[in-house]
Amino acid sequence: MLRGGAAGGFAADTALEPLGPGRCRATVSERWLIAGGPNGGFLAALAARAAQAAAGDPDRPLRSLTLHYLAVAAPGPLEVAARVERAGRSTSAVSLRLEQDGSPVALALATLGAWREGEPEWQDARMPAAPPPEAGRVIPPGVANAATFLANFDVRWVLGDPPGTDGERARAGGWIRLADPQPLDAPALVAFSDAWAPSAFSRLAAPLAVPTLDLTVHLRAPLPPPGLAPDAHVLALFSSRWAAGGVWEEDGELWAPDGTLLAQSRQLALIRRLPA
Amino acid sequence: MLRGGAAGGFAADTALEPLGPGRCRATVSERWLIAGGPNGGFLAALAARAAQAAAGDPDRPLRSLTLHYLAVAAPGPLEVAARVERAGRSTSAVSLRLEQDGSPVALALATLGAWREGEPEWQDARMPAAPPPEAGRVIPPGVANAATFLANFDVRWVLGDPPGTDGERARAGGWIRLADPQPLDAPALVAFSDAWAPSAFSRLAAPLAVPTLDLTVHLRAPLPPPGLAPDAHVLALFSSRWAAGGVWEEDGELWAPDGTLLAQSRQLALIRRLPA
Repeated sequence: MLRGGAAGGFAADTALEPLGPGRCRATVSERWLIAGGPNGGFLAALAARAAQAAAGDPDRPLRSLTLHYLAVAAPGPLEVAARVERAGRSTSAVSLRLEQDGSPVALALATLGAWREGEPEWQDARMPAAPPPEAGRVIPPGVANAATFLANFDVRWVLGDPPGTDGERARAGGWIRLADPQPLDAPALVAFSDAWAPSAFSRLAAPLAVPTLDLTVHLRAPLPPPGLAPDAHVLALFSSRWAAGGVWEEDGELWAPDGTLLAQSRQLALIRRLPA
Repeated sequence: MLRGGAAGGFAADTALEPLGPGRCRATVSERWLIAGGPNGGFLAALAARAAQAAAGDPDRPLRSLTLHYLAVAAPGPLEVAARVERAGRSTSAVSLRLEQDGSPVALALATLGAWREGEPEWQDARMPAAPPPEAGRVIPPGVANAATFLANFDVRWVLGDPPGTDGERARAGGWIRLADPQPLDAPALVAFSDAWAPSAFSRLAAPLAVPTLDLTVHLRAPLPPPGLAPDAHVLALFSSRWAAGGVWEEDGELWAPDGTLLAQSRQLALIRRLPA
C-alpha cells in the first residue's frame, strides 16, 4: 500500500480556490477514488472546509454536517457553492451544493457554533478498550478491492472482526490518522468518519457494494484536541445494528486517546450483493 | 391535558396547499406550539409530506430526512419549497426550504427510495422490553412546561427515569400514537421522533432549554407497518450519552410492537440552564 500518496497532503488535496462570492473550486484527485468515484469522506471534507470558509468565523467552528450523495463524482474539477442561510446569536447555518458540470453530486447542510463552557454536561459513553496502534494490523487485510483513497490515511485495525469473515456483529475499528500528519481539524475529522472499511464487511462474507446515501457528522469537541500531537492516531469505531430493505445504517465514534469523544457519525447506505 | 386537540387531526394540521411548481403553503397552528414556536417534529412532518409530494412516486417513499432548524417559526402561514434535485435509478433526492416572510426557518434534505427485498439483512438490535401501553403513565408527569403540542399524541411513559429526577441515564421512552388515529405514515413517524419529553430531562433535575439544531430520521421499514392497527401505539426510546460544550445528542428508536425497527433518529441540540 502506498503511504503518503497525496502529492501535497490532505490540506492541499482538499484545498478550495475562491471563484467569487459563495463559490469555490476543488479538485477530485485520483488519489481519493474508490470504485470510480471519490470517497464520501473526501466530499464531506470539502463541504466542511467550504462551510467554515463561508461562515468566516474561527470562533464559530463546524458542529454538525449532513451530506446527501446524489451522483458519483468524476475525477477533475468540482464546484462548491456555500450560502450562509442564517447567522444567529449562537450558531450559523450554511447550505452547500457540490456540483460538476452544473449538476449536483452532493448537497449538504452545516451548523457552526462556538464551544461553550459552563453548561450542563454528562459523559455516559466510554472510549472502547483497544490495543495501541502499534499492535494493529494495517488494513485492509483481505479486502479484495483495496481502495485507492486509503493511502491518504494511516489505519491500524484493532477492533471487531476483519472484513469478509461473516462475523457475529457489524463492528470494525481501530486507530486512524492522516498519512501526512497535521493538527486535527474539522475537514480531517469528517473524512475519518467515512474512511474505514465498512462494518458490513465484518458482518457478512459475501462481496457487497455499500454506497452511502447520506452521512451526518456531529463534531463534539474543540479542535485540534488539546494535547493531541499532529501525528497521533484517534480511535474510530463503526457499527451497524440493522440492515433491511436494501439499506443499512452505520454509526461511528471518534475518540481522542484521552477518552474525549471527538465526533459521532451516522450514515444510511444502500447494500447490494456483488457477483462473487 | 387536552386529548385530540387538533381540530382536523394530524393529516389536516400538516396538510400542504399547492401554490405552484415546487411550492406549497402550510399553517403553523397554535396546537403545535412549544415555548412559542412549533415543535420540531411538526416541521419535520411538513418536510416529509412535501418531499413525498415533490418526488411524486408512492413506490418511492421517504427513507431519510435531515432538517436544520434556523429560527423559531411563528404561528401562521409557512411556505415549503421542495426541489427534486435528482431522480436516479433507485433513489430520489429532494431539497427543502421552510420559510416565513421569505426567511428560512428550517432547511432539509430528503432521500426517497423503494423498499427492496432479497438484499443482505441483519437484525442485531432488539426492541427494548417494555410494559404494555395500559401500564404507562400519561406524560409529562412533573414537567413544568407541559407543551401544547403534546395534546396531538397519546403518549404512555414506560421506559427510563421520569423528567426532572436527576436519573442515572438520559433515557426516556414508551408508547406513542397520534391522538386522532390514522394508518402510520412517514409524516407521523418523523413527528414521533421529536415528540417525547427530552431525555436530558431524565438525566438532570435542573430546568433546561434544549432547542434542536438538527434532526435526522432514517425510516427503516415499509409504512404503514403490516398488521399495525391505526390506533396501535409504537414503542419509542430516546437516549443520550454525551453533553459537552453546550450541545448534546439524542438518539431515538421507534419500534412496531412486533419488533420491527421502524425508524432511527438522531438530533443535536443546544443545552442551556433555565432560571429555576
